[in-house]
Amino acid sequence: MPKPKPKPGKRGSGGRSGLPETVADLGEFGFIETLRRRLPQASGSLPIGVGDDAAWWRPAAGNGILTTTDMLVNRVHFDLDYTTAADLGYKSLAVNLSDLAAMGGEPVCAYLALALPAELEKIWLDEYITAFLKLAQEYNVQLAGGDTVAARDLTISVTLNGLAPVNKPILRSGAAVNDDIYVSGSIGDSFCGLKLLQKIFPAAALNPAEIAFLQGRHLRPAARVRLGRTLAACGRVNAMLDISDGVVADLGHLLTASGELGAELDQAAIPLSPAAAKLEAAGVTDLPDLLTGGEDYELLFCANPGARAEIAEIARACGVNLTRIGRVNDKRKILMLVNGKSEALSGRRGYDHFRN
Amino acid sequence: MPKPKPKPGKRGSGGRSGLPETVADLGEFGFIETLRRRLPQASGSLPIGVGDDAAWWRPAAGNGILTTTDMLVNRVHFDLDYTTAADLGYKSLAVNLSDLAAMGGEPVCAYLALALPAELEKIWLDEYITAFLKLAQEYNVQLAGGDTVAARDLTISVTLNGLAPVNKPILRSGAAVNDDIYVSGSIGDSFCGLKLLQKIFPAAALNPAEIAFLQGRHLRPAARVRLGRTLAACGRVNAMLDISDGVVADLGHLLTASGELGAELDQAAIPLSPAAAKLEAAGVTDLPDLLTGGEDYELLFCANPGARAEIAEIARACGVNLTRIGRVNDKRKILMLVNGKSEALSGRRGYDHFRN
Repeated sequence: MPKPKPKPGKRGSGGRSGLPETVADLGEFGFIETLRRRLPQASGSLPIGVGDDAAWWRPAAGNGILTTTDMLVNRVHFDLDYTTAADLGYKSLAVNLSDLAAMGGEPVCAYLALALPAELEKIWLDEYITAFLKLAQEYNVQLAGGDTVAARDLTISVTLNGLAPVNKPILRSGAAVNDDIYVSGSIGDSFCGLKLLQKIFPAAALNPAEIAFLQGRHLRPAARVRLGRTLAACGRVNAMLDISDGVVADLGHLLTASGELGAELDQAAIPLSPAAAKLEAAGVTDLPDLLTGGEDYELLFCANPGARAEIAEIARACGVNLTRIGRVNDKRKILMLVNGKSEALSGRRGYDHFRN
Repeated sequence: MPKPKPKPGKRGSGGRSGLPETVADLGEFGFIETLRRRLPQASGSLPIGVGDDAAWWRPAAGNGILTTTDMLVNRVHFDLDYTTAADLGYKSLAVNLSDLAAMGGEPVCAYLALALPAELEKIWLDEYITAFLKLAQEYNVQLAGGDTVAARDLTISVTLNGLAPVNKPILRSGAAVNDDIYVSGSIGDSFCGLKLLQKIFPAAALNPAEIAFLQGRHLRPAARVRLGRTLAACGRVNAMLDISDGVVADLGHLLTASGELGAELDQAAIPLSPAAAKLEAAGVTDLPDLLTGGEDYELLFCANPGARAEIAEIARACGVNLTRIGRVNDKRKILMLVNGKSEALSGRRGYDHFRN
């Protein structure tokens, strides 16, 4: 897409003035050329990547294509004050990997649309791309296309195409009454990490390693791709999603999609990292906050109690903790079992983009 | 993706105050629910569309997947002062359709990522979606997924998945010396339409129908999908792209991709609409402007002179004018034949996002 309207404040051929080189100095076509040189050669399965009107991907015959897209805006989804270019390069791909993981898919081709302020430094963009491509390579994902435009606010939109699992994707719908509810990893770390980065939470209760752990969980969430694929392949998982809006909100989405079901969570079972547990013990945060903070990017799924041994085996095989945190019921609300007594959850909800 | 940081200026449950309902009143999940109700039921080829972590598309076995993505930002790519919601709904899909057309592809699934200011009126969003879905239906495209986030500037990122043509996609590379150069439709209308909308060009030389035509060519460009597919199927086109940056810049991209080739264009052959020709005759614009203005979204392609009869037949069959405007040579620059004499083109170039 072109921009037909010339803007004032046009930059010269740049970099010679002693000032840092900017995106404006590099130019759109300069950026695309730089990018192309860093990408692998065209291959049989991706004969055309970046540089033509569209990318051409020839997937192996299979069960179809899974596609997800996520958009991130500066000062809305991240803040350049405490997010490095490399953090963002990682995270902007990771959140999409997490979506495909939640369906049990295998990510293959990524498409990166960037809206960049003209004054952004070229070195920032280099570091962003380096981190994006590094994570892509770890997951065998190719950067296959995209778009680059000028804008006031840095905005990133990543689309990810992948292969559906051999059986069928695991959907949000499909949970049944009496299903066990599981989460991977630990809950609330990203929320605590964000509050530490924003200096809203005091760091005094934690040692440097704990602070780094929690901040890292916010800035560089793990994408549970292998776990998602293994859970899909086992055929025992009834419903799954990744936790982006918080355990409570996302469990609510899953229960609603599965037909107005409810759940009882066991407070004692919620898996907290030692660092998050320390903040909770110090009164800096509490369980309702950790369950609604969001951006965990852990998998939340439901399975019949008959599958417990198999799921424990998958946890071992994938090297990821899977914790049974509750059970599905038909009561159309989410309750919390606290010291043997069912309690209503507090009113705090997950995130709604336009209302918070 | 959630936004973890609450923002001030939160709106109430809205619409009851007598003020117009906004995107903030509707809420993210309200929007998704409204959207889902407007979309067709899941089908065998698209079992999962909007509403899960990823969309699931089962394409018929074929020659692979073509994917394109375009990002549009308010006051950069469009201006809400003279672009209606319906215009933008149309155009944000059309520019992606045009990219697939340029490869000879068949568009199938669209993914819509929207960054919306909280104060945007709900009715604006309704009209945007209605126009987007109307154009999608005309091309048998399904809205299969997306993302919706809050932002300061309205930003739209559309990704389109489609099927590659049976032979192979037509690339930008592949042009050969002595190839004829063709364009579809007429050139420079969108540029004139934009300048009229911006009140930079005087409308005095034109009648209302001509003004509407030129503005319409900017706001609602035709996507030459059928033409692109037919040209790909005939197997006689060596290289093709759609004109977004202007004839000169895009021909330059094609010639560079094809191996440092050049071209001579015939000034007398450049197809102008009667309205654009009138503005040129009145001295309001000139040919270099029309050739570099951009956003034509016409197809530009190269074919061996032996294919002329076949291409003329395709033009008739598709009901689109195809004009031979010049010929490829090995001279590594683009010249213009003016009254039998080769002249260098003026220095004006196509659009580079960060430099204009």
